[in-house]
Amino acid sequence: MKLAYLGPPGTFGEEAALRFAPEAELLPCPSHAAVAAAVDSGMADAGVVAIENSINGSVAETLDILIHETQLTIQAELVLPIVHNLVAAPGTRTEDVAVIYAHPQSIGQSRRFIERCFPKAQVEAALSNAESVQQALRRGSDAAAIATLRAAELYGAEVVARGIQDSDNNVTRFVVIGHGHPADSGRDRTSIAFTFPEDRPGALAAVLNVFAGRGINCTKIESRPTREAFGEYVFLIDFEGHVDEPATAEVLAEVRAICAELKVFGSYPRWR
Amino acid sequence: MKLAYLGPPGTFGEEAALRFAPEAELLPCPSHAAVAAAVDSGMADAGVVAIENSINGSVAETLDILIHETQLTIQAELVLPIVHNLVAAPGTRTEDVAVIYAHPQSIGQSRRFIERCFPKAQVEAALSNAESVQQALRRGSDAAAIATLRAAELYGAEVVARGIQDSDNNVTRFVVIGHGHPADSGRDRTSIAFTFPEDRPGALAAVLNVFAGRGINCTKIESRPTREAFGEYVFLIDFEGHVDEPATAEVLAEVRAICAELKVFGSYPRWR
Repeated sequence: MKLAYLGPPGTFGEEAALRFAPEAELLPCPSHAAVAAAVDSGMADAGVVAIENSINGSVAETLDILIHETQLTIQAELVLPIVHNLVAAPGTRTEDVAVIYAHPQSIGQSRRFIERCFPKAQVEAALSNAESVQQALRRGSDAAAIATLRAAELYGAEVVARGIQDSDNNVTRFVVIGHGHPADSGRDRTSIAFTFPEDRPGALAAVLNVFAGRGINCTKIESRPTREAFGEYVFLIDFEGHVDEPATAEVLAEVRAICAELKVFGSYPRWR
Repeated sequence: MKLAYLGPPGTFGEEAALRFAPEAELLPCPSHAAVAAAVDSGMADAGVVAIENSINGSVAETLDILIHETQLTIQAELVLPIVHNLVAAPGTRTEDVAVIYAHPQSIGQSRRFIERCFPKAQVEAALSNAESVQQALRRGSDAAAIATLRAAELYGAEVVARGIQDSDNNVTRFVVIGHGHPADSGRDRTSIAFTFPEDRPGALAAVLNVFAGRGINCTKIESRPTREAFGEYVFLIDFEGHVDEPATAEVLAEVRAICAELKVFGSYPRWR
């Protein structure tokens, strides 16, 4: 099995891919859109994408791919703790660190540590939690990077400080996207997206009333721009249930009657 | 009047600040959080922050600042067209461009142009649409940057290509945050955030029913993580009305009765 993920090796995406399928052959891709394209085109059998972080919220790029760009379905989910570390070339002295390379999201999630321990360091943006290490190593002995332990090991950096993230509640939900339709496990989540025929007060309330009327728990509700007109949205709901269950099928039929378009991203076993 | 914005000079934040208050003294800040802190502490009288883009959706950092970090209120809004340009040091030959510096969001919004016209260029992340120019100029004659026209002018770069963004529907809504309470203009928007006492089906439906029951148009609904427990959310609604109108005040009282916490970000004149 070939599993695509947001590379390069050493990212949290790789860690999630390794946990989903330790035996899989891994294919690093340059963007979440490229992960979807790799699976759509048959270069990979499935792909791993980040969909939500407990601090930063939804991963907009992934939601937009599921809404606009692919018919792939969600097969599974996994919640991964996000641990940031400060790493540098072996032998780097912490008092010499003048530049820190980091993915912008990791900068935001490690702000307190950087402000306290490296208040004068210049922070430079990197495209991933693995490229940050490569950039620091290229620059030399006055540089450090925020990265995963695996990236440090893969690229030959030394760990300067462990667990530097501001919050210990920092977790990311990843999903596997691929072909097909996992069977009803009895503990599933279904993810849908929908739009309304026109901008009318009460349409979203009507949809939520369908779920509420049946006591179905919506675990997440989110909106994304339609990209067609400013102020028009696609709504996304995650709820407990599987499309093969009669109750869920009935709810979806009722929701479909209210909506302009309804897309089911998939039903898949809930994590834990 | 001193107006803080997300700098450095040449960003869209500066452009928005100049349109809000052409005569103001401008204070560039290194992050949206720093803009809020500058106003909170009295270093600036008000601040300009991006809150929503028509392609990328909500600016999570700004929503989280309004939710968690400040009691400042929204005073006004402005919708700015987002135009990206490719710029480089004067005399740069397009066939020599091997590296393009750009803010990650601008990379995503100009992907088609880059893939078509510079398929082999290496794309490097920059922290803003103005720093990208500075990085390209530092590197020299094989570099270009995605930037605003103003950043090109300010830092002495030449415009290679204009309007390279994928979508012409690309606009960003900015808001002014500050102290006080603009009067009812008759065409206002009110922005609120709220949480529920426990994770119970139907609570959000109940809130939306309050608005729907009075025919009030919710122009936006969004969710953000509470940061306390994964899967718990703060909900944000924008709706038409002003807190000083009796109908709006009644709606807010009904909503407050359903919620655990309710925070009003402000009532302010709608753009256009």
